[in-house]
Amino acid sequence: MKILETIVTTRNKDGSTHIAPMGIWDEQNQLVLAPFNPSTTLENLRREPYAIINRVDDARIFAGCLSGHKQWPLCKADQLDIDRLEAALSHSEIEVIKIIDDDLRPQCKCKVIHEATHAPFKGFNRAQSAIIELAILVSRLDRLPIKKITSEINYLQIAIDKTAGAHELEAWSWLMDKVEKHLYD
Amino acid sequence: MKILETIVTTRNKDGSTHIAPMGIWDEQNQLVLAPFNPSTTLENLRREPYAIINRVDDARIFAGCLSGHKQWPLCKADQLDIDRLEAALSHSEIEVIKIIDDDLRPQCKCKVIHEATHAPFKGFNRAQSAIIELAILVSRLDRLPIKKITSEINYLQIAIDKTAGAHELEAWSWLMDKVEKHLYD
Repeated sequence: MKILETIVTTRNKDGSTHIAPMGIWDEQNQLVLAPFNPSTTLENLRREPYAIINRVDDARIFAGCLSGHKQWPLCKADQLDIDRLEAALSHSEIEVIKIIDDDLRPQCKCKVIHEATHAPFKGFNRAQSAIIELAILVSRLDRLPIKKITSEINYLQIAIDKTAGAHELEAWSWLMDKVEKHLYD
Repeated sequence: MKILETIVTTRNKDGSTHIAPMGIWDEQNQLVLAPFNPSTTLENLRREPYAIINRVDDARIFAGCLSGHKQWPLCKADQLDIDRLEAALSHSEIEVIKIIDDDLRPQCKCKVIHEATHAPFKGFNRAQSAIIELAILVSRLDRLPIKKITSEINYLQIAIDKTAGAHELEAWSWLMDKVEKHLYD
């Protein structure tokens, strides 16, 4: 099953926008999200069954969601009254049709209402991919042996050294601050 | 320096299209390619200083360039008389302004003549990234210890198992055939 890493925006009860990284997939022409239970995204989707799937290539936004940098420029979506990320290369506006309950990760089956493209794909960047991997590692620090953490980081660091631009270096540094805090605090 | 992994198409002497994976970067508003010396891409660019930068998310095309699968649908570019990949999410048509010679990798400094977007970015896919990494590994098999090859593959396999679709599984299998041939022949 092909999982695509995106940023999902939903509307909080107070009208503000919640942003969260999320892997999504296609299943029989529906788009499926599986937010953790409990999570703000799931709570928002249960209250208002709408969301924006933001497809971004700025890996800082993924890294930022795990390191407290969550202030990204937003703008109005085209049809739904939920903000999207300005940085989105493309976005989909979706309606949750059904929630299949699960103690850990309920599945939200969604219909795509509208899609738009805003900027071209610029090509694969190995540093961006390394940041996605480090972000996943950071989300699991408590469950991993230190040796595995350091050896994975040493491997990922190669792509950073060879292919990162300024944004990728910033994203990497935010995540490494979290790693160092975990290892040395 | 942010390196973007793309597929470059150039025109061969006989009019056919040569496709090659290539990392490119921006430098003072110029786009820079550094093809190996010697290589068909470099030879083509010295004869006709034009190329298409194809930005694709189908990792099979990268894997295919290293495993003998090079027959991908082509179509006319917009302004240059060089074919582009039909699969390109976006493409740039470029002119080589200057070649800075180098024994290993001359740098071709290029001006962008035209750009177009054809399909939306669908989000990061960890399996696609793993294929790019495995493709680089495959291109260096002769220079790497077997232990490093197998441990990197074991790591990359995780993203394949968790996030690959049919195209990514196919790309992975082509590259793994090359790895197994290297290890066991």
